[in-house]
Amino acid sequence: MIRIRKYTELNKTDHDRLFNRFGADFSSIMIDTVAPIVQDVKNNGDSAVKKYTSRFDGVDLSSITATPDEIEKGFQNTPGELLSAFSAAAKNIEEFHSRQKREDIQYDRNGITLGVKYEPIERAAVYVPGGKASYPSSVMMGVIPAKIAGTEDITVITPPGKNGMVPDIICAVCKMLGVTRVLKSGGAQGIAAAGLGTETVPKSDIIVGPGNIYVTAAKTYLFSQGLIQIDSLAGPSEVLIISDGSADPKWIAWDLLSQAEHEEMATAVLLTTDIREAEAVKAEIMKDIESGSGRHEIKKKALTRSDIIVMPDVESAIEFSNRYAPEHMEFAVTNPMAYLNRIRNVGSLFLGDHSPVSVGDYYSGTNHILPTGGAARFSSGTSVDTFIRRTTFQLLNREALSEARGPVNIMSGAEGFDDKHGGSINVRFED
Amino acid sequence: MIRIRKYTELNKTDHDRLFNRFGADFSSIMIDTVAPIVQDVKNNGDSAVKKYTSRFDGVDLSSITATPDEIEKGFQNTPGELLSAFSAAAKNIEEFHSRQKREDIQYDRNGITLGVKYEPIERAAVYVPGGKASYPSSVMMGVIPAKIAGTEDITVITPPGKNGMVPDIICAVCKMLGVTRVLKSGGAQGIAAAGLGTETVPKSDIIVGPGNIYVTAAKTYLFSQGLIQIDSLAGPSEVLIISDGSADPKWIAWDLLSQAEHEEMATAVLLTTDIREAEAVKAEIMKDIESGSGRHEIKKKALTRSDIIVMPDVESAIEFSNRYAPEHMEFAVTNPMAYLNRIRNVGSLFLGDHSPVSVGDYYSGTNHILPTGGAARFSSGTSVDTFIRRTTFQLLNREALSEARGPVNIMSGAEGFDDKHGGSINVRFED
Repeated sequence: MIRIRKYTELNKTDHDRLFNRFGADFSSIMIDTVAPIVQDVKNNGDSAVKKYTSRFDGVDLSSITATPDEIEKGFQNTPGELLSAFSAAAKNIEEFHSRQKREDIQYDRNGITLGVKYEPIERAAVYVPGGKASYPSSVMMGVIPAKIAGTEDITVITPPGKNGMVPDIICAVCKMLGVTRVLKSGGAQGIAAAGLGTETVPKSDIIVGPGNIYVTAAKTYLFSQGLIQIDSLAGPSEVLIISDGSADPKWIAWDLLSQAEHEEMATAVLLTTDIREAEAVKAEIMKDIESGSGRHEIKKKALTRSDIIVMPDVESAIEFSNRYAPEHMEFAVTNPMAYLNRIRNVGSLFLGDHSPVSVGDYYSGTNHILPTGGAARFSSGTSVDTFIRRTTFQLLNREALSEARGPVNIMSGAEGFDDKHGGSINVRFED
Repeated sequence: MIRIRKYTELNKTDHDRLFNRFGADFSSIMIDTVAPIVQDVKNNGDSAVKKYTSRFDGVDLSSITATPDEIEKGFQNTPGELLSAFSAAAKNIEEFHSRQKREDIQYDRNGITLGVKYEPIERAAVYVPGGKASYPSSVMMGVIPAKIAGTEDITVITPPGKNGMVPDIICAVCKMLGVTRVLKSGGAQGIAAAGLGTETVPKSDIIVGPGNIYVTAAKTYLFSQGLIQIDSLAGPSEVLIISDGSADPKWIAWDLLSQAEHEEMATAVLLTTDIREAEAVKAEIMKDIESGSGRHEIKKKALTRSDIIVMPDVESAIEFSNRYAPEHMEFAVTNPMAYLNRIRNVGSLFLGDHSPVSVGDYYSGTNHILPTGGAARFSSGTSVDTFIRRTTFQLLNREALSEARGPVNIMSGAEGFDDKHGGSINVRFED
């Protein structure tokens, strides 16, 4: 069960567990499991995808993509209340992501025009986990930024249900967002199909979205071959909450439990400046677990790896969080905006005591495909930028090239390119 | 030697060679060579780095970083003319990259404040190839964008010279740019030291810059373990030139030769709408090769894999290039700006007949660390963005949370999180 510790009492083992918590090694899965599947899909296309879907999902597909009729029927089967909720959420997500668009850059300097063109990646695939449950919210979080970026060719990849069909609600959200291609094959075979292309699905240039270890290993394997772009490596979900004791302990407890409810490997950490709050939050958590409500066993297991840590002050808690680099951070203190510029390395940040993580998981507009395991030190959540690439450009006139001539000859000469690097400028000034 | 072909005569083998030209598989190098080195550096830090530097570079280091005195002496030993050239180039590169900075986003919607904070990645490392020659220009291209992004901790990684010292000119450019930490160990051991941290060098969050196959495999290996961010996988350098016959054939020939001069594996492709130009360019190339000038053998080998392709028109040449996704593209036609919005998937674009690639390699201001092998379909050159990460944030008041309550309960219920995801909102409205 979740423990209460003082920050000053944490030892080296605790520090390692908290601050160096990724370190997944996909090498053996990549080589032993993923590489043969990728090779098979490369050689045999759709038929290999069908073979692995039959083997791993127990489903025999006639086509590896959903028919227009299947998508339409799934939409029709979805309750109106659910459609309305997703539609309202999609509107917020569209609004938030639309603000991230960039203007191209262009300027002149002494006879040279320079700039940056921001272009959409042409073909994107969004992985949506399936199996025991389906995750229509992840369709929104992958597809909406891609569409706003201008990506025209979008594939949703998701495992089929036991009946060989794409779950209704996934169909519904795809239809709502204008996605017409749903590859109904999960795992490494689904990633391989989208990353390499087959008879039925085109090669995607980028694959985003969370998945299990085979999905992540397959994405990483194709990335390591220079074939696709990917988002960051998906690990277990996590929240770090900073509290100064001003919020209701039960609210904080419920937010920790909300994270624990995700999966056994989820992590929830509370940093509080108030020892009484620490005890009150723990008591609320114990009460919930003892009540056996909801995903009781999952929450219990997740909480064994979770911590309540008593910090000397809010400043030291922020320093802890900056180093921890959480996927989600809740900053439940009075006047949270005053600290905004000091908080770093967070996937998505929830400010104040009325911003639980679940509101960002579904509704507020921010993205929920986020870096985990400390990867927020160097990577970011899915955004419009994820689907944008840059082309830089330059146009010189004769005078600008003349100005560059001397320096380029000197620098390229120093690097051993003393013939044609300088020469390709010099030749333009020969008679 | 370089061949002239008509576009319509290209067969499937040509298409594969041109359009699916990456496909490097680093798996065996990662597992057999890189993984043991990484493990050794993880366990033994500096002493492992020294061991491999002794083994692979034949140099016994007393320290794995350059001393301040070593950097100062390198600077002092560098001719003033060279310092001036690099200083002028650095000014242009700083100007170009400064324009890429982004403003944070913040806005309100019915009781919710949302936004995006753009933050620098805290610790970055820049790999600078060494060995036979040194590449001070790559120091600029990696370090300047990082500094403009706001990254404060920067490590330059470069192999030592045979005398165990960092080459003078590398020291000089480091000093010019305010870099004080130079890790003098290349290959997988240098990447491992920067990616993991040792007694002497801190762990970097991101490693950029080109290198040989061991460097690229080591970067990819650490990325695949979720430990660092990297730029795109470095492959052989390449140029694609589109010409409408308006430029002097000798200029075009020199630009192709400038690329060929880089390395035996470099690729140069000319797409021209003018068969006479094709022949004239080929004749100039032959003349140069026969003259035995410069890096004669390297150019000759590179040209065996290069093509001059005669295209029906400029439009079809642009389509070819968009599919090819070249690292460098020269667009040597009259009125090039008119086509700018139709050109996609280029690392760096050189417009008109007075913009040879070498001006961007060193001087114009654009970056020269660029995606190769077709990776420009989904990745971009090094820029300020490379060193920036995003934190999204949201702050809800009670009314905004109340509005979210219904939809979040409905959506989270549909995904099987029907207890605490909705519950963490509901609890805030209990009496």
